[in-house]
Parts: sequence; structure tokens; C-alpha cells
Amino acid sequence: MDGRTDSSWLGAPLEQLPTPALILDRATLRGNAERMRERCRALGLRLRPHVKTHKTLEGADLATGGTRRGIVVSTLAEARFFAAGGFDDILYAFPVPRWRLAECWELAQRLQEFQVLLDSPQGLELLLQNPVPGGKRWLVWLKLDCGNGRAGIRPTDPEALALARAIALGSPELVTLVGVYAHCGNTYGCRDIPAIQAIARDTTAAVLEFVAAHPVPEMSQLTEVHPGNYLFYDLQQSQLGSCRPEEVAIRVLTRVIGHYRHRGQLLLDCGWAALSLHGGQRGPEGCAAVEGHPRLRLVGLTQEHGQVEAEDGELDFERFPVGSTLALIPFHACATAAMHPVYFVHAEGRVVELWHPVRGW
Amino acid sequence: MDGRTDSSWLGAPLEQLPTPALILDRATLRGNAERMRERCRALGLRLRPHVKTHKTLEGADLATGGTRRGIVVSTLAEARFFAAGGFDDILYAFPVPRWRLAECWELAQRLQEFQVLLDSPQGLELLLQNPVPGGKRWLVWLKLDCGNGRAGIRPTDPEALALARAIALGSPELVTLVGVYAHCGNTYGCRDIPAIQAIARDTTAAVLEFVAAHPVPEMSQLTEVHPGNYLFYDLQQSQLGSCRPEEVAIRVLTRVIGHYRHRGQLLLDCGWAALSLHGGQRGPEGCAAVEGHPRLRLVGLTQEHGQVEAEDGELDFERFPVGSTLALIPFHACATAAMHPVYFVHAEGRVVELWHPVRGW
Repeated sequence: MDGRTDSSWLGAPLEQLPTPALILDRATLRGNAERMRERCRALGLRLRPHVKTHKTLEGADLATGGTRRGIVVSTLAEARFFAAGGFDDILYAFPVPRWRLAECWELAQRLQEFQVLLDSPQGLELLLQNPVPGGKRWLVWLKLDCGNGRAGIRPTDPEALALARAIALGSPELVTLVGVYAHCGNTYGCRDIPAIQAIARDTTAAVLEFVAAHPVPEMSQLTEVHPGNYLFYDLQQSQLGSCRPEEVAIRVLTRVIGHYRHRGQLLLDCGWAALSLHGGQRGPEGCAAVEGHPRLRLVGLTQEHGQVEAEDGELDFERFPVGSTLALIPFHACATAAMHPVYFVHAEGRVVELWHPVRGW
Repeated sequence: MDGRTDSSWLGAPLEQLPTPALILDRATLRGNAERMRERCRALGLRLRPHVKTHKTLEGADLATGGTRRGIVVSTLAEARFFAAGGFDDILYAFPVPRWRLAECWELAQRLQEFQVLLDSPQGLELLLQNPVPGGKRWLVWLKLDCGNGRAGIRPTDPEALALARAIALGSPELVTLVGVYAHCGNTYGCRDIPAIQAIARDTTAAVLEFVAAHPVPEMSQLTEVHPGNYLFYDLQQSQLGSCRPEEVAIRVLTRVIGHYRHRGQLLLDCGWAALSLHGGQRGPEGCAAVEGHPRLRLVGLTQEHGQVEAEDGELDFERFPVGSTLALIPFHACATAAMHPVYFVHAEGRVVELWHPVRGW
């Protein structure tokens, strides 16, 4: 980071930033946050933003509209970080781990609302054996697997009903059922919007069918959605049709560091260390698009270098002088963000905020 | 990290570590460092270890045999980190960037030896126009492209000789030619040892031919090698035949967090956030092997979850209780290490050191 402290970049023009740099457009971030809140209001759903894409206090503050209440985290490191940052009503979206129960137990004591997932009777037994002191209760979501095939109990499994009943009615003074949780991760395999809608519809139907088959009032309706990626969006979401291209707030700023005319290539100072290899199943060109230059293709990615060619082989080197910057639109924002210790938020071409994500587990 | 400070894990048995965790076997690390030093001694070559895989003071101390002299770095963040950590004789293996010249200039002043790469007359001109004060000189390696096709000037290009001559003979009081640099990154595309040896042989021949065609004494022989990955090694290097399986020092420790018998799967608490997606071109199973269980296959990787199946569908769930640990051998150590804020070094089953890598640029 240029030997300067991060904060010394506040006010700097983007072109002066040391590259590669993760940059976020503030207006786009704000628009994405506002649109999602509006959409949820219109649907009568509570929005509980997932923070795993950005992992920053600033991003979660924006997503919660400043309330700092009601988020989803994917790791205990995130849970502690956001709790320490003044957030509450935190759902740890992971089947509660016996070997880290002490940490969950501390968070359950410390926060007004710390919620966990359950998908097994063993998990419930664990909570019942380790009550939260001070008149507090374990707050539990039953994790259903509605076709995603990762964690969760299948709603058609007879044990699912038994577990829901046990959670809801077993020892309400110790464990309270907050809701039923499902994740449509299988939509990432979809090629178009109707396919995504079909999965969302199937998931909703499966959850509602399960809830209808079961009498406890806590499970009466779909009440919350937990989107995560929407604050940044990315090339993948834009290709899936989840967002418009102009709603993608994230870029990796990179510089042209060399001209290699004999092979028709520009060399960039952005490799997989700044971008990740997500999207690269069929080669590096899937990992990012070059903003404003649809004919440029990323054809190579090593740790700290990227190689760019023109689609038709006709690269106009004079348009891309050594030292000039390009903005890469990454395929998968969660993966790209994980590579950066700081994000530069900009408005009108200048750095206006620095966001620092939490790491680790 | 379990809410505890990292150092509180010193002495802890590996099985108690919060997972996922990057673990390194100390005896294997030491063996790898010693063997590479021995090999270089036998070949009469100086070993200048590349630190980009581990990015830690401790790893570089081990690789330099405690001298803390003579390393290669890939970013200026690394250069500053190692300079502050007492290292000197640092080669910044990147064509010297005009827009970050001030940082290079500071390092050139601060260190006894700070070396940079050049592959263009413009780069040389830049250094000549910005002399290092105090009687010091810019120390320069000419970067050749011997078939790798990334940075560098081709040795057969007439401009290469002209540039070498200009560096070596132009203004020796300002800029000194230290050597000629080539990187056989193209060996990663090789399927067997003879193919790798052929590329190494071609690269060596190209460099020596170039050097022989040019009269300056500084370029009289191949003098240094700059390996990077060998301290950790990984599944890829083991598959390429660059190391024996028992020489791979790196693992990601993970826990079984669920049994999904209806689909014959274990769920792990290690996703791409702890492993990267490197090696996954043909699916997640390329990203890591499960140590000691050759029939287990990684069939799914999301941000924080991994899914494992048995090759023949016959998974013995009793062997892998929920909460038990597995060790994953990652495909690409550089990429996996980049995902972790701390590495746990172990000996005889206990944590004996904690290494903290530098990040960013």
C-alpha cells in the first residue's frame, strides 16, 4: 500500500492508487442497498443482509440502513467482529458446531439476539445440555435442504418434522425456534432467469409445504430473505440476470505494465492474487471483463500478472500506454473481495472511504 | 480465531485448533529448506529464495538459513515488510514501475542491496533520470522471456542485446547490471519430468546463448536460482514430480460438520475461502486430496463448505464422526496460503510456531 497508511489515500484521485486495488463505486453501492430494501418492503419481507461478500462494518451498516440490526454471518470470526462493531441480531448461518460451542455460548450471552442453525437432533441435544444463562434462550433456525444438497435436513424427511417439533415444543425456556432456513445455492448452476425463478419457486414451495404440514405458529410464513452478494454484484450476477451491468459496484483497478507487441499482448499488474481464479473453468477470460473494452480478453493470470489480448488480434497499443489504468469487473465478488485487505470506496473519481474486511475463522 | 489471540494456541494439540486452519509440518519445512540449499551448493549456484508462496519473515528466515540476505519478492508490500523485518539483498522481481518509482527509490536508499528488473529502454531511462543518492546505484537484472511469454524481452530480439549493453556500459556509476533473469513459468503446463527438464534446458540454453553473445563479465554464467514454492510444495508439485508426496509440508485442517447419508456425503468446514479454487478446472476434486484417504473425493466447494464422497459410493460414516478432523493437501500452496491470516506450524502434533504473512500491494 505504497508505504503510506491506508487513510492517507482519502481524497486521492483513483488513478493515483497503487494497483491492483479493489474499488467500489459509492453511488452504486447505495443504490443497490436501497433497491434491495425497497424490494423487500414491497414484498412484505424482512431483509437480513448476509455480510460474507464484503465482511466489513461499513458494508453491513449500509445494508442495514444504519440500524446495525439483523445480519447473517458465515463464520464465527465475522460474528465476533460485527458484535464488537456494535451489531446485534446476528444469525450465524452454519450448523452449530459442538467443538466451538463455547464461542457461540459467549455470543449468545453477549448479544441481545444471537441465532444459530440446526439440522440434527444431536445439535438440539447439545444446546439443551448447555443452556444460556441469565434467562436467555438459544435462538434456532431449522436448516432445510430444499434441493441445494449442502447442509440441512430434507423437508420430505420424516425426521425433519420430528426435529422441528422437538425444537419448537421441547424446552421453550431453553431453545426457541425462530424460523426455517433454506439457501438456493443451486441457482448458481442456472443459465437463465426462468430457471432461477423455478428453483426459487420450488424452494419456497418446499419450505411452505413443510411449514404448512407443521402446526407451530413460528413457522407460519416466509418472513425473511438473506441476500449477500447484492451490495457489490459481479460479472456472474450480471450474466445470470440478477442485476443490470450498471449495478455492479466492484472493480479491480489495474495498470498496464508492459507492451508485448510480438505476441499482441498487454501485461497488467493484476493476477489471481488480486482477482481469484473464480470463473476461470474455461480459461482466464471468464475471471473478469475489462470495463469499457468488450473486445479485450484476459488470456493469462499468474500470481501478480494478467495478460490481455484483443479478440481479433488487433490490439491498439497506443490506446493503452504503459502506466495507464484499466478496471476489471470480477466474475465473483465474494472471491475477489477475499483477496484484498482494504477496499477503496470512491465518488466522483476520488477515494471517499476505506473499508477493512475481517478475515479468518 | 476462536476469540483467542493467535499466540494462545502455542502448545495446543492440532485437533483443538479452530478449523479451517492452515498447518505446516516443521520437520518437513526444515527438510525442504535444507535439501534445496544442499542441491544449490552441489550445483555451485547461489540460492535466492522467492518468498511469494509464504510471505512470512519466519519462512524466509528458514529459507535463507538464518542469514536474512538474498530473497526475491513479487510485490512492494513484500519488499517493505521484509526490509522492516531485517532482510536485505532483496530482488523485486517485477519490471520497475514508473508510477511507484518513489517507493523503489526509498528501498534502494534504505537497503544495502535492492534490486529491480528491467525489460525496456524506457525502464532504464527512468532509473538514469532518478539516481539513488549517497553514492549508491540502481542494481538491475535484465528480464528475459525465454518462452514463458509473460514479462521480459526475448533473447533473440536485437533490442535485448542493445538493452543489456546499455545497462551494463551506459552509466555504471548510476545503474549496475547484476544479472540476467528468466522464469520458467511455462513448466506448469508440463505433464512429466522430461518435459519440465526440456523447458529448463531450453531456458538455460537461451540465457547462456544470450550471455555468450554479449561481452560483459557480469553475465558470465548462471549464478542464482530463485525457487519459491519448495518450502511448502503442494499437490501440483507432487503430481508434476517436483517433490515426493512426503515432502509436501502444507495442509488445511478441516472438520467433518455433518453426515448426509441419503446422498453419501460428508460436509466439511473448509470451502474455497480456505483452499482457493486452484486446480478445480475439472471440478472441485482437483483442488485438494484428502490425506490418508485416497478413495475420498472433494465433490463440492462453496465459500465455507466442502462436500466429500467416496469414489465408489461406499462411504463408511463411522470412520468420520462429526467433529473429527481431516487434512486436505491443497493443489496450489501459493493460492491456499493467500487465503489465511495465520499459519500454524506444528511438531509432534502440537503447535510450535505461528507465522503471519504480509498481504496487499
